[in-house]
Amino acid sequence: MTTYPADLIITGCTALVHVEGRADHERIAFRDDAAIVVRDGVVAAVTTAADVTGLPAAERIDARGQAALPGLVNCHTHAPMVMLRGVAEDLPTEEWFNDVVWPVESNLTARDVELGARLACAEMIRGGVTCFADHYFAMDAVAAVVEECGIRAHLGEAFFSSQGPEGRERSLEFALRHRGGAGGRITTTLAPHAPYTVDDADLAATADLAREHGLPVHLHAAENRDQTEASLARYGATPIEVLERTGLLGTDVLIAHGTGITERDLPVLERADGRVAVASAPRGYLKFAWPTTTPVRALRAIGVPVGLATDGAASNNSLDVWESMALTALVQKAAEGDPRWLTARQALHHATLQSARAVGLDGVVGSLAPGHRADIVLVDLTGPHTQPVHDLAATLVHSARSSDVRTTIVDGRVLMRDRELLTLDVPSVVRELGERLPALLDRGHGRRVQRYDT
Amino acid sequence: MTTYPADLIITGCTALVHVEGRADHERIAFRDDAAIVVRDGVVAAVTTAADVTGLPAAERIDARGQAALPGLVNCHTHAPMVMLRGVAEDLPTEEWFNDVVWPVESNLTARDVELGARLACAEMIRGGVTCFADHYFAMDAVAAVVEECGIRAHLGEAFFSSQGPEGRERSLEFALRHRGGAGGRITTTLAPHAPYTVDDADLAATADLAREHGLPVHLHAAENRDQTEASLARYGATPIEVLERTGLLGTDVLIAHGTGITERDLPVLERADGRVAVASAPRGYLKFAWPTTTPVRALRAIGVPVGLATDGAASNNSLDVWESMALTALVQKAAEGDPRWLTARQALHHATLQSARAVGLDGVVGSLAPGHRADIVLVDLTGPHTQPVHDLAATLVHSARSSDVRTTIVDGRVLMRDRELLTLDVPSVVRELGERLPALLDRGHGRRVQRYDT
Repeated sequence: MTTYPADLIITGCTALVHVEGRADHERIAFRDDAAIVVRDGVVAAVTTAADVTGLPAAERIDARGQAALPGLVNCHTHAPMVMLRGVAEDLPTEEWFNDVVWPVESNLTARDVELGARLACAEMIRGGVTCFADHYFAMDAVAAVVEECGIRAHLGEAFFSSQGPEGRERSLEFALRHRGGAGGRITTTLAPHAPYTVDDADLAATADLAREHGLPVHLHAAENRDQTEASLARYGATPIEVLERTGLLGTDVLIAHGTGITERDLPVLERADGRVAVASAPRGYLKFAWPTTTPVRALRAIGVPVGLATDGAASNNSLDVWESMALTALVQKAAEGDPRWLTARQALHHATLQSARAVGLDGVVGSLAPGHRADIVLVDLTGPHTQPVHDLAATLVHSARSSDVRTTIVDGRVLMRDRELLTLDVPSVVRELGERLPALLDRGHGRRVQRYDT
Repeated sequence: MTTYPADLIITGCTALVHVEGRADHERIAFRDDAAIVVRDGVVAAVTTAADVTGLPAAERIDARGQAALPGLVNCHTHAPMVMLRGVAEDLPTEEWFNDVVWPVESNLTARDVELGARLACAEMIRGGVTCFADHYFAMDAVAAVVEECGIRAHLGEAFFSSQGPEGRERSLEFALRHRGGAGGRITTTLAPHAPYTVDDADLAATADLAREHGLPVHLHAAENRDQTEASLARYGATPIEVLERTGLLGTDVLIAHGTGITERDLPVLERADGRVAVASAPRGYLKFAWPTTTPVRALRAIGVPVGLATDGAASNNSLDVWESMALTALVQKAAEGDPRWLTARQALHHATLQSARAVGLDGVVGSLAPGHRADIVLVDLTGPHTQPVHDLAATLVHSARSSDVRTTIVDGRVLMRDRELLTLDVPSVVRELGERLPALLDRGHGRRVQRYDT
């Protein structure tokens, strides 16, 4: 233990740590009465109270009765879509998108996106999310909000082939310009929308750009079974096979959803030259009544990490990654017909190391291990719904809620303290959004938009 | 509008009301800028702010930015089991019950049950639950906690045939002694455990007692497909058919779970002479990886109300009925393969009128209509995760969480104000439970218990 001053010391908590030399979820362990020392935005040590007595620190947080976890990572969302939360309910996917969401979305301004991103970041910070992978349009506005509010983000400017080569070029330009932005809190991706809206030549060119510039790729693929069947009918190949033949599986690729991944895709994913990960957002799959969920067990068997996600709030109704963690455990048990599968510890492994890996930040976030960025959430365990604690992993996954997060820290900076947001003004955002929404929804009614069919 | 003093006036909220002359979920409507007048524990009026200006009231609550809903009803739980939250995780149902839960449960003392009930009531009041249907042992202790903390309850002393006729007699004695207790807040039931643990003669005698004393019956039946198949193999009848042939379907019967209800049971339930209802607790069905959930659509088609429930926290990990509401919507869509089924309004209908009906309190609770008991929850809508509000039903079901309940009122009495519990001391309960648990769990290890197999 060094003795030079710390920026922040958190004492008295139970810390979720990852034990070296163990595999997968067996790495998850808890250290009682821990002290976490943060210096220069990094976890300097996870140690004992005795070890930090008298150590000078700019700030101390007494976290007795709380658990300290690595901040949650939302591995796939469209943050600004919070402004469309609840506009299209109880509809099949195609109607939801073509008849309501896209007509409104295609008319958004950068100011709408900025306000939506601000509201989304407020929701995520309140829910213990310290990093989000965003896939949307007018992403300069999102990057500006990330810079302003202190959260971490993995950003990509989405494009369709209908935009011509300019779509892809704009995505590249965005990725290069913002890479390492916000003091290193922003990482970037190329962001083709999906194999059914981006043609093979465009996907292949994207793969080339990814390799040339050392950029990862984030896209939707095999979202559901219908997409896989449509792809087979149209191309004679599954969406995953399309990714392979266009070279995208030779890049670091983050695949959103993948509930349409089939048996024949597994060897394809296993032999991928790049680092492939999948983001799962199970709430929306239930809500849209898709017949399958992300095949987590099969993906884990071939070593593919599965990160937790919410998708956008227009389908998921929230950006609550904590709920995604619980639902992943519940839905995976049901899907596999096996109550022993996807234990609470496995869910915590998805929420920490696998999610960090999914957004290319393994070794950077997702663990409280020394040297990792200090992205930390403190979770109150004293509520009646989290007592008594017989099994802390189960308490965290199945009893605690995102609202139990008291404090959210990114890069060592406190963004929420005792549930109070320190970097965002929600009432002013809600007020301005409220003023803009009637016009936005009305503009959408003109339906001056192109339809995308799977 | 009468002008004599009110006990409580709530102003500025958006009130969930039920419109007369409409059917089912079409009854759900919202009244903006409403004022709710409470007098003598009853809703006297839901009106406008102008209408209550100058009306004297002992207490006023400014509920701007909040929705007022009828309090949630937990239609099937084992409240004291919160003390076993997390003791048996990720196990199949039989192992969960026989190897861990029952060995501990069978050694509980009345003091354990009392502490568990107190913690459970704290959790439920904090989660907006104003009434719970409890099915457990040592229920005098639960009744005492209900009396003390101000919640409403529908209580039954559980019994097995292995206890001999004394089990049934004790259940009757409890029901008669506590009926109308706690100033009318307690209603009671006869509570046979289930058709696989209570024999036909005992069930038939229970049905006779129910009719003789005008008591309802609350029991587990057709909990899952395995139980239905075991019943068919053993008796040549499904659990529902056993209820019919023993006369229980001629009583007001509340059936817990019913995920094993089959096609052949539907005409049986439809021709029931009594009032049959089912309580659904979908989280546990996912967690145990049961192959089916409660067949809500089929039950609604024959007019059977389905109330929302959590089951005990040893399986569900929480008593969060709000989560049960959201999960019911999500899981039913998935089970039916139909995103249009079980809309947010339907979920709210289950949470209000159907749940009230399930516990025999239709016309008494479950609606803010004048003359109903003033069981009211006020839900904060100003959080970033619930904004903007395009569709309040969707906001309540899919975006709001139990932690958004700010204020919980039963019989016109405020039990929680701005998230502070007024009638229960959680830290002292947690402290004493913590002292007792090691011995309780250790006693369980002796396994001096009888196994119950389906």
